[in-house]
Amino acid sequence: MSRTVLYMSMSVDGFIAGPGAAPGNGLGDGGHRLHRWFLPDAGASSRGDLGHLAGADREVMDEAMATGAVVAGRRTFELAGGWGGDHHDGVPIFVLSRRRPDPGLEWPGVTYVNDVTAAMRMAKDAAGGKDVLVHGARTARLALAAGVLDELRIHLVPVLLGQGERLFEDMPPDHVELEPLRATDGPGAAHLSYRVRTEV
Amino acid sequence: MSRTVLYMSMSVDGFIAGPGAAPGNGLGDGGHRLHRWFLPDAGASSRGDLGHLAGADREVMDEAMATGAVVAGRRTFELAGGWGGDHHDGVPIFVLSRRRPDPGLEWPGVTYVNDVTAAMRMAKDAAGGKDVLVHGARTARLALAAGVLDELRIHLVPVLLGQGERLFEDMPPDHVELEPLRATDGPGAAHLSYRVRTEV
Repeated sequence: MSRTVLYMSMSVDGFIAGPGAAPGNGLGDGGHRLHRWFLPDAGASSRGDLGHLAGADREVMDEAMATGAVVAGRRTFELAGGWGGDHHDGVPIFVLSRRRPDPGLEWPGVTYVNDVTAAMRMAKDAAGGKDVLVHGARTARLALAAGVLDELRIHLVPVLLGQGERLFEDMPPDHVELEPLRATDGPGAAHLSYRVRTEV
Repeated sequence: MSRTVLYMSMSVDGFIAGPGAAPGNGLGDGGHRLHRWFLPDAGASSRGDLGHLAGADREVMDEAMATGAVVAGRRTFELAGGWGGDHHDGVPIFVLSRRRPDPGLEWPGVTYVNDVTAAMRMAKDAAGGKDVLVHGARTARLALAAGVLDELRIHLVPVLLGQGERLFEDMPPDHVELEPLRATDGPGAAHLSYRVRTEV
């Protein structure tokens, strides 16, 4: 059965971007450090060549690239230039947003959806039995609150950024219990996999 | 050579205590969840009986209990009732504080020190060649800033607390590179060990 799986690179102090993220500086000041585990060349923007990855880094990236649909927050999507309309292998992309699409960020495979539960359902339907890659901090929080996020893959990067944007911020005080699936240690990051326990 | 090693239990969203931490509620509301991996009974306060621990949980706790001195922040020390003056095995405790000791929190093995670098040096000298256990978020931040924290052991607890006190907060924007030593998966927590890279 298709699962919705959040994939995010995070520093040990909880940041997914440096300060000052904006279009053209999508990861914020110094935030490219967080992607170095799969993009060693800070200037590179191509996601195509991942042949240099090894061990657990390779495994988790292969898994992410085998997903059948993407759900991304509007901000994440825009900061990434919409991945040119193709995150990987042309799989359908669902962008969570209440606003109308920017004309420069419309592609055939990209659908704007204004509700996180609907976005996840549409993505699962479109994924052809594969998992759904979820991306974006706000989308993660909305999906957790709505009970429609199935799993987390956190790529814990061995650095303290000090400042920036956190993955988990402004959350409600309720505990969300996680079931550890596995923790693997790659050359560039530790990869922590959890299932979200919704029965608690 | 003796190393200063921070040992802290942290939720996946970065909290080391729930909201509202105070004496008598040292881990804050719901914060006992973070210690469940080594104290399954939330009401237990004894640190003596850890025989139930298994696997990586046991290994890291054995390592912590083999340290030869403790450096703790004043707040951490007070919230824990000063551990009755004995954190483990009667090893010397150095409390980082600029204020005078509370008369109710003075014991023979407890020394108040007002400077983090001095506290770490004194603890290393007192540890008899063993490592120094460091505890407390503010102490960790001061020690990182002063370049006197050698390693981190983060016990990553599989829960999102949502709110509470963070381990890493109000840090300077400088990156602190960490060298991964090992990531082990225990029954109750994932244990992430890092060396602080000071040469960067």
